[in-house]
Amino acid sequence: MKIGILGAGQLAQMLALAGIPLGCRFVFYDPTPDCCAAALGKHVQEDYDNWQALQAFAESVDIVTFEFENVPVETVNFIEKHGTVYPKANSLGATQDRLFEKQLFARLGIPTAKFIDITSRADLEQAADSLGYPLLLKSRTGGYDGKGQIMLESQQQLDSAWLEINGQPFIAEKWVSFSREVSIIAARSQNGGCEFYDLVENQHHQGILRTSFNRPDDPLSTKAQEYIQTLMNELDYCGVLTLELFQVGDQLVVNEFAPRVHNSGHWTIEGAVVSQFENHLRAILNLPLGATTHVAYSAMINFISQIPPVNELLSVPGSHYHQYGKQPKPGRKLGHLTICADLPETLESLSDQVNSKILPLNHSGLDLA
Amino acid sequence: MKIGILGAGQLAQMLALAGIPLGCRFVFYDPTPDCCAAALGKHVQEDYDNWQALQAFAESVDIVTFEFENVPVETVNFIEKHGTVYPKANSLGATQDRLFEKQLFARLGIPTAKFIDITSRADLEQAADSLGYPLLLKSRTGGYDGKGQIMLESQQQLDSAWLEINGQPFIAEKWVSFSREVSIIAARSQNGGCEFYDLVENQHHQGILRTSFNRPDDPLSTKAQEYIQTLMNELDYCGVLTLELFQVGDQLVVNEFAPRVHNSGHWTIEGAVVSQFENHLRAILNLPLGATTHVAYSAMINFISQIPPVNELLSVPGSHYHQYGKQPKPGRKLGHLTICADLPETLESLSDQVNSKILPLNHSGLDLA
Repeated sequence: MKIGILGAGQLAQMLALAGIPLGCRFVFYDPTPDCCAAALGKHVQEDYDNWQALQAFAESVDIVTFEFENVPVETVNFIEKHGTVYPKANSLGATQDRLFEKQLFARLGIPTAKFIDITSRADLEQAADSLGYPLLLKSRTGGYDGKGQIMLESQQQLDSAWLEINGQPFIAEKWVSFSREVSIIAARSQNGGCEFYDLVENQHHQGILRTSFNRPDDPLSTKAQEYIQTLMNELDYCGVLTLELFQVGDQLVVNEFAPRVHNSGHWTIEGAVVSQFENHLRAILNLPLGATTHVAYSAMINFISQIPPVNELLSVPGSHYHQYGKQPKPGRKLGHLTICADLPETLESLSDQVNSKILPLNHSGLDLA
Repeated sequence: MKIGILGAGQLAQMLALAGIPLGCRFVFYDPTPDCCAAALGKHVQEDYDNWQALQAFAESVDIVTFEFENVPVETVNFIEKHGTVYPKANSLGATQDRLFEKQLFARLGIPTAKFIDITSRADLEQAADSLGYPLLLKSRTGGYDGKGQIMLESQQQLDSAWLEINGQPFIAEKWVSFSREVSIIAARSQNGGCEFYDLVENQHHQGILRTSFNRPDDPLSTKAQEYIQTLMNELDYCGVLTLELFQVGDQLVVNEFAPRVHNSGHWTIEGAVVSQFENHLRAILNLPLGATTHVAYSAMINFISQIPPVNELLSVPGSHYHQYGKQPKPGRKLGHLTICADLPETLESLSDQVNSKILPLNHSGLDLA
């Protein structure tokens, strides 16, 4: 089977590493030069609105998927006319606009932070009155890794925020005072069967994911599974989908979803029976889904800005090193380490050990920015 | 790091799949067109005695290794002059000639079948007299997967055997009446540190490996580890090495060794903490070796001659599918399935289930030959 992927970054790379043993071969469509996935297949370096190139791409493969949710919906709509795409374009449409995404959650009864559409200065003032401070403003489109967000601490910042919004579509969100950030990843097959990975606990810094721990038997996982299944059923989804949530008290509040494999699921490569990457491919290829059961307590730690010395990291027992082959740049995700252990205490101590090596590098990198 | 591999078959492919996450990129040197590993790097399609191409290849990479032991020693000797090769050429020299290999085992006190060098018809007769029937004749060079072997059942076959030998270098081996075929795989680092995988029990058919089971805590594993360590120390070996042995009573008799990753170690991709492929790369790159501990009871079943239907196989719990992307051909290894389970009984029943699907195809394939 020949698989076309829109995007040729590390997610596409890890999809290809999972797919080659299944007998798949890959074509990556990405306008960026020197993409890291290009080593694993053919790279078509064309724009997302080059219809001729898109048609040739779609016709050259058996099935198309995407590694990121900011591919223009028009691109995916166009490809659907010339071939098969999974997940379908509707899932992109639902996530590319935060207003529509929030409205979808509300309609499905999935708890999410209160929100108000901001189309005027008056909307902004009213949002501040009804939702209170701190107030989170989010660009309706294009944001990721904390980009496109404005945090208002008080009324004094209304003027500067309005200037920054500058006529772009924004929503205001009530600040959620959460105790934990978690995510759930699930795979849904073409016939509607679902498999769920362990709930994952995530730690962010400066808007970028730093660490993820799988949390087997987390008391909130049933709730999270219910929400993600409701969403996937509504979208008649096919592939892997990720739902990001906040824990507030003993409840979950959904933040957003990503119609794709996710950074917080990288631990599944070594920590689960079948990884999120392989299960995404199995789903879109209409193959039986693999078991999502964990095989270890796992911690995933991102390499941001700099690649830590591999020798030191590999001497940590149970560590698995992933370098994406990307040029270092402040704030850029360059790789990750997954640590697997039989016991949660062992994992905690090993990941502390690793964090003491990695985190200073991540931060020093960001300080250069 | 840029790694050059002599050979571009499935072993090279699996080395590359393990090495790309470590940040390695690959160049494969192989005179054969349409090699399956070529999808994962650059393929230099030149002969093993094209010195100019070999020099350019050696100079274009940081380190060279090989995926099969029948690369001419002269090729590796030549590359050693223009770059670094691990394992070193001495290990090839020791295994490419069965006489030297047997003499090496004998010198190191590693038990092996009695053998006699055959250089004349008189030698052959004397071998039959002293070693008895059945008598196994093996070509000193170039044999693999049971090729280059003649089995003599009685004196009546001496004439035809002598015709078949036809002046080529052969040895005669005393027939070993074994109860089990096993192998042990170990990784040795540049500083001499060793890690051993579980002893593996192998089943062959028509000279080709069909299934391998890891056997944690096998009572013979200490003995096997002692033999492989003695051999690796003698060769000052760096990388992964495989030793094939017969069980006779409660003793082990060594058959042969392979200075490389091995078909009987494919289960380590999912069944061990760090696979034979990653550990081979870690060893030659002077990185800390990873744990060789098993994470599951594992069975590996080869796809010979034909690729079985993927859908049926992936519906077996704990199954992992590996297709090499090679054209089907009678007797050819085209892929394998690894099944992992928590309990030996579960594994036994699952592998019976899989074998009932795969084995008829393997055999029907061979019947076409």
